[in-house]
Amino acid sequence: MNITSKQVAEILAQQDNITILTHFHPDGDTLGSAVALLRALRKMGKKVNFLNNDPIHPKYAYLWEGLQKQDFEEQFVVAVDIATEELLGDDLKARYAGKIALAIDHHPSNTLFAGDTCLEGDSAAAAEIVYYIIKYLGVEIDAQMASCIYTGISTDTGCFKFRNTTARTFYIAGVMKDLGADTENINEVMFEIKTRGELELERRLLEKMHYYLDNRLAIALITQEMYRVTGTTEDECDYIASLPRQVAGVMVGITIRERTNGTWKASVRTKPPIDASAICKQFGGGGHANAAGCRFDGSLKEFVAKFVEVVEEALQ
Amino acid sequence: MNITSKQVAEILAQQDNITILTHFHPDGDTLGSAVALLRALRKMGKKVNFLNNDPIHPKYAYLWEGLQKQDFEEQFVVAVDIATEELLGDDLKARYAGKIALAIDHHPSNTLFAGDTCLEGDSAAAAEIVYYIIKYLGVEIDAQMASCIYTGISTDTGCFKFRNTTARTFYIAGVMKDLGADTENINEVMFEIKTRGELELERRLLEKMHYYLDNRLAIALITQEMYRVTGTTEDECDYIASLPRQVAGVMVGITIRERTNGTWKASVRTKPPIDASAICKQFGGGGHANAAGCRFDGSLKEFVAKFVEVVEEALQ
Repeated sequence: MNITSKQVAEILAQQDNITILTHFHPDGDTLGSAVALLRALRKMGKKVNFLNNDPIHPKYAYLWEGLQKQDFEEQFVVAVDIATEELLGDDLKARYAGKIALAIDHHPSNTLFAGDTCLEGDSAAAAEIVYYIIKYLGVEIDAQMASCIYTGISTDTGCFKFRNTTARTFYIAGVMKDLGADTENINEVMFEIKTRGELELERRLLEKMHYYLDNRLAIALITQEMYRVTGTTEDECDYIASLPRQVAGVMVGITIRERTNGTWKASVRTKPPIDASAICKQFGGGGHANAAGCRFDGSLKEFVAKFVEVVEEALQ
Repeated sequence: MNITSKQVAEILAQQDNITILTHFHPDGDTLGSAVALLRALRKMGKKVNFLNNDPIHPKYAYLWEGLQKQDFEEQFVVAVDIATEELLGDDLKARYAGKIALAIDHHPSNTLFAGDTCLEGDSAAAAEIVYYIIKYLGVEIDAQMASCIYTGISTDTGCFKFRNTTARTFYIAGVMKDLGADTENINEVMFEIKTRGELELERRLLEKMHYYLDNRLAIALITQEMYRVTGTTEDECDYIASLPRQVAGVMVGITIRERTNGTWKASVRTKPPIDASAICKQFGGGGHANAAGCRFDGSLKEFVAKFVEVVEEALQ
């Protein structure tokens, strides 16, 4: 059933021993939302943990500063910022598929896999929804929760730059700032600082960007070798996915990354009206209207050729 | 005299035939503030023009869409976002030094050169102050004014990323979004789109970044030759000044640019507690605590050597 953030608060108020699930390859919104909610529920005296399928980049460690894992028998499972059970990642999916009571999400593509779903597609981040849930829970938002919510909002909007940013996004960001969110350090960690290795990776990527379809499609490639030589990891360099779309005239920017098992994944970024989610759907992937992703098991050459074909169609 | 934004509104309400001055090498805040104020005052039936010393980058053209220069005998001169008369630029300084009735500014370094000065150093942008002035003038903010104010705020905060961003900054941005500011296109033009030439300039700059003082100082160099080869101009590539400071561990990032007359100018960006303005003061320049600028007539080698010396002292 699709429920409101107020109803979510009413349900959560009745529950205890809660596990909050984050999506695989966890980002600032799934983590910020999960930990903000965890902090609020614990403040109410409940036992709550959050789980992640994949390792978390150390830059997010400030989110759970001072928190310890709790010991309890799990009674209620919540998923935040997760559009499909696939996105739980293999381990969490094996454990939790079909057992998730509540989903809090802002992806219009959410498959309504949970018992109840609070789906607000016009929220820039799941953290926006979590802000209202915490308000309805009646919990006072402290500086640490504010930092969690601000992290979700700022990372999912590219620091208020993406088209999903609304007046409400700014409003909540302002309130979080007022409540003590450490925006200065969060912005520095999330949007400012790059290692020399990352800059070197960026330089190599710029050297090798390829253009197709009258320069309306740009494809950048990152190989495992490039990570190795520059001393970087995929998680660190996530922001790089937005680079190809930044080029003047480019409508679709794709960053193809080699996975450790030799297969490929792509981050697709589009300018309106081109639908990134529709492009990725043709590869079995998905996401938002202007930012989506997919994987591919064949050769790189095939992957690129199919992208050129699919994007050509989308551009028409 | 230092006056409030409310007093500014009271003064402006009494005046007519107003010229608004912007600072040399005009940016989004001086232009956005000037044109927002111009639009508001014209809506009150007053005659108002704005003047710029240097050519304006075409990306700002949307600010004065639909506006024409007006014909009148100037009676009152206002400076916006201008800290010293030097920053008027040579031509405007020759015409207006000593004749500016009112300054609206957010630079703590403002020299109080005007008859009256509304100086609010805790405003992220002059456009924040202009927002309140227009409110006090009683003028309804339309979508075009909102876009002007949003431009000033977003460009002076690096799209809400810089440390000058306050809860009020977010609040005003949200109101501007609600009032119809075209944030999507403004963000795209100001923060997203780069030409292939700009990316190539960035790549070349990354290739040649130099590190000093245990990697705490990074200096990047842009020569006129680099602009020529990449087909870029200085105005287009203004954002590049923030690149050296982005490197992990760097406390002071300096971008030195060759001017067309063979002399040099530098943009200095620091992380707290290092004071960029104090560093630039030693070269006769100035600015904000974490972003300042200066010029140098000697050799590049001397300029770099003096920077290393001055920054070494600042780091102690």
